[in-house]
Amino acid sequence: MSKGITSRADDYSQWYTDLVQKADLAEYSAVRGCMVIKPYGYAIWEKMQATLDKMFKDTGHSNAYFPLFIPKSFFSKEAAHVEGFATECAVVTHYRLKNDGNGNIIVDEDAKLEEELIVRPTSETIIWNTYKGWIESYRDLPILVNQWANVVRWEMRTRLFLRTSEFLWQEGHTAHATETEAVEEAERMLEVYNTFSQDWLAVPVIRGRKTENERFAGALDTYCIEALMQDGKALQAGTSHFLGQNFAKAFDVKFTSKEGKLEHVWATSWGVSTRLMGALIMAHSDDQGLVLPPKLAPIQVVIVPIFKTDEEKALIDAFVDTFSAELKAKNISVKFDDRDTQRPGYKFAEWELKGVPLRVALGARDMANGTVELARRDTQTKETVAQAGLSDYVANLLDEIQENIFQKALNFRDTHITEVNSYEEFKEVLEAKGGFISAHWDGTVETEKRVKEETKATIRCIPLDQPEEEGICIFTGKPSSKRVLFAKAY
Amino acid sequence: MSKGITSRADDYSQWYTDLVQKADLAEYSAVRGCMVIKPYGYAIWEKMQATLDKMFKDTGHSNAYFPLFIPKSFFSKEAAHVEGFATECAVVTHYRLKNDGNGNIIVDEDAKLEEELIVRPTSETIIWNTYKGWIESYRDLPILVNQWANVVRWEMRTRLFLRTSEFLWQEGHTAHATETEAVEEAERMLEVYNTFSQDWLAVPVIRGRKTENERFAGALDTYCIEALMQDGKALQAGTSHFLGQNFAKAFDVKFTSKEGKLEHVWATSWGVSTRLMGALIMAHSDDQGLVLPPKLAPIQVVIVPIFKTDEEKALIDAFVDTFSAELKAKNISVKFDDRDTQRPGYKFAEWELKGVPLRVALGARDMANGTVELARRDTQTKETVAQAGLSDYVANLLDEIQENIFQKALNFRDTHITEVNSYEEFKEVLEAKGGFISAHWDGTVETEKRVKEETKATIRCIPLDQPEEEGICIFTGKPSSKRVLFAKAY
Repeated sequence: MSKGITSRADDYSQWYTDLVQKADLAEYSAVRGCMVIKPYGYAIWEKMQATLDKMFKDTGHSNAYFPLFIPKSFFSKEAAHVEGFATECAVVTHYRLKNDGNGNIIVDEDAKLEEELIVRPTSETIIWNTYKGWIESYRDLPILVNQWANVVRWEMRTRLFLRTSEFLWQEGHTAHATETEAVEEAERMLEVYNTFSQDWLAVPVIRGRKTENERFAGALDTYCIEALMQDGKALQAGTSHFLGQNFAKAFDVKFTSKEGKLEHVWATSWGVSTRLMGALIMAHSDDQGLVLPPKLAPIQVVIVPIFKTDEEKALIDAFVDTFSAELKAKNISVKFDDRDTQRPGYKFAEWELKGVPLRVALGARDMANGTVELARRDTQTKETVAQAGLSDYVANLLDEIQENIFQKALNFRDTHITEVNSYEEFKEVLEAKGGFISAHWDGTVETEKRVKEETKATIRCIPLDQPEEEGICIFTGKPSSKRVLFAKAY
Repeated sequence: MSKGITSRADDYSQWYTDLVQKADLAEYSAVRGCMVIKPYGYAIWEKMQATLDKMFKDTGHSNAYFPLFIPKSFFSKEAAHVEGFATECAVVTHYRLKNDGNGNIIVDEDAKLEEELIVRPTSETIIWNTYKGWIESYRDLPILVNQWANVVRWEMRTRLFLRTSEFLWQEGHTAHATETEAVEEAERMLEVYNTFSQDWLAVPVIRGRKTENERFAGALDTYCIEALMQDGKALQAGTSHFLGQNFAKAFDVKFTSKEGKLEHVWATSWGVSTRLMGALIMAHSDDQGLVLPPKLAPIQVVIVPIFKTDEEKALIDAFVDTFSAELKAKNISVKFDDRDTQRPGYKFAEWELKGVPLRVALGARDMANGTVELARRDTQTKETVAQAGLSDYVANLLDEIQENIFQKALNFRDTHITEVNSYEEFKEVLEAKGGFISAHWDGTVETEKRVKEETKATIRCIPLDQPEEEGICIFTGKPSSKRVLFAKAY
């Protein structure tokens, strides 16, 4: 099969778009900026969801569901939130259509809403308006709730998974009696995202805090995990916000403390989205197609039979029956691709494109020798292995592949963090190599904005693990006590 | 605790509303007609989702995701669909808000959409517009796709779970090469719903076909399952539609058959929604609160310790540790309610309200005797049982409770199907007893509408299992070859 994918070297951006569509992950829909997530892409998202959902529940959270629509006036209640979110939103103004008599459907102007409704871009406002009814005393706290939902932020320039007008996500919204508890929660959920990203996506990330300029609208502190893509651009893979008492004050949510005092509630929110699909694809894939870490691959092992006669096929089938059952018993998902409409070479190319981590091929000679051919997607290597003990061998190999994909991404990331000590050097590295640039910054929004204007690089985060270090800002020469990470970003 | 629930005898409708709210299942939101599904209610919905999702996958379906918005013009494309859905819909007309300078958020009139977008009331149109790009040849068929999503149908009179402007559901949309295959699919999914309803919800249902008048807008045939609530009203619990080639024609979706001919594709769609929560609640619950079938109960067993001293508590704790671990090993969800802020009687009432199927209580005397007290929610009976072998006993008892809840509902349903042979009798039974009324009908929309106007009863379905039988229509006296089921319905 011809894959029709542009190479990364030729045009990284086009490579991504080609890959997402050719590998049947997603496509654009008839609605501007909205995507269709196709079954193969959705199967990966479902694995992400199931994993994260378990991690949320293991840390004490429950799921709930809040309305899609938010009254317009709610957006005026939290000052910073107004600036951040009350811009590119889908606005519902009417609630009825009618037939114009000529078979055309038109909007019924008599059915105008008294107050416009906004399709949620995020749910802090409607949720805190709801929490008001749930919280009276410290006994009602903490509230540890998560929601899986669709959200809409009207985007002018869209890219599949990375920036779409509608996307899928989870948003956790928690309420606490104390500041300490809320900060701990925000940090705990950052750790959950960190673990998920490294152990499941196989994407190494840097944990950090956003600068004031890049903070979530309404947050006192935004924690984030930042990943690096193969083109040297950064991608924010998840955020966890300490919201202080901002939303409690905006929606008048108070509780009676153990000491009998009436106090405002402390809040966090945290989320990851279908954007993670973009991170997964861009971190690992190559010019031949997707490279999926085994833990998130919808199909972990594909078996392709090579045969000329029915007798040969019957022999192979008998082996595959047993082998597949053994894999399934180990919770390994396996597909036996015995279509008679396609040749083996076509199948090899197709499963390579779709990123199946391990391919097992076997023909008459293999059956005679008691062997199979294994082909790893990550290293593009092949080996001949005995059929005896194969399922154990495969299980171990999948673990090894998961680890190798992570290590490869980690090596790339680590060789793409460059310390610089002057603005000249900063611009040179940014242009020639990209990646994260670790530099001193004077801590002002003004400097951050100037650097962004001149270079398109933003401060991705102030890393949590970064030690204090005396230095001077590369842009202004003013004193600085800590390096921050700059990068161009998705 | 005071439960504050109206009794069913006093006001069935108020009982339902009280129960949904007091049991922490759902509540109304600040947005007219939209509900908040609270964690306890959502936990039940998640169990329904997980069960159905597995059943869909076991029958060969995959999940995908399609846009929330549908261009207005799509609704004009399928004639019957226009009439059915292009009425009470949320309409998005603008894509931006702005600050008016006084801190108020207003709609930016400069950001008007060229074509209004409709928030999906159902997704046939956008999905068939997408399938057009996926289907060329018979090799691309069948397409067996399901979507879990939120949908919006603007409702003037709402009731939690039963009728809300936004609700959650799944919608399956399949494409087939032949009429036979599509009909088989529609029937297969009706069977899935039937099995789910009986074996999981413990709600017996009647499988049938809708009359032309009650069919889904755009369907050639609508199959349904109809349940009976305790007040004698019917509730449609799921539908599966054979759509013929209507949507393929509306969206020009053709395929090349094995014989090389260009033909329109055949379609089905099928769905169940959060309405099932309403069915579950109304079918089984009583004046004391929820009664949940064990298979869908978020907490299947609650353990309440009764103690005066720390020594007593320590003894009980040690037993509960082992017992809980045994239950968990059997996949039984258990909660140990050892709050020291509430007395046992309060806890008993709370878990009764929340419908936990089985309560285990134990105190110092039980520990001395090696016994516990078991209280069944469904029968309101108690027994003293030995601690030895308790987890096996409990596992069996949960199965028995599931079966008993179903049998009770089945008995109620079966004693509420009344055959009548005259319109007088029809009206008498409808008034005095309610339930399903099995009667002859002349097969015309006209008669069906007249009966509805006069009695509020509709034809719920033409049962699949109903034998042919010569008779005369109770309303017009015209000949009829089969009885149909009438009822007042939710």
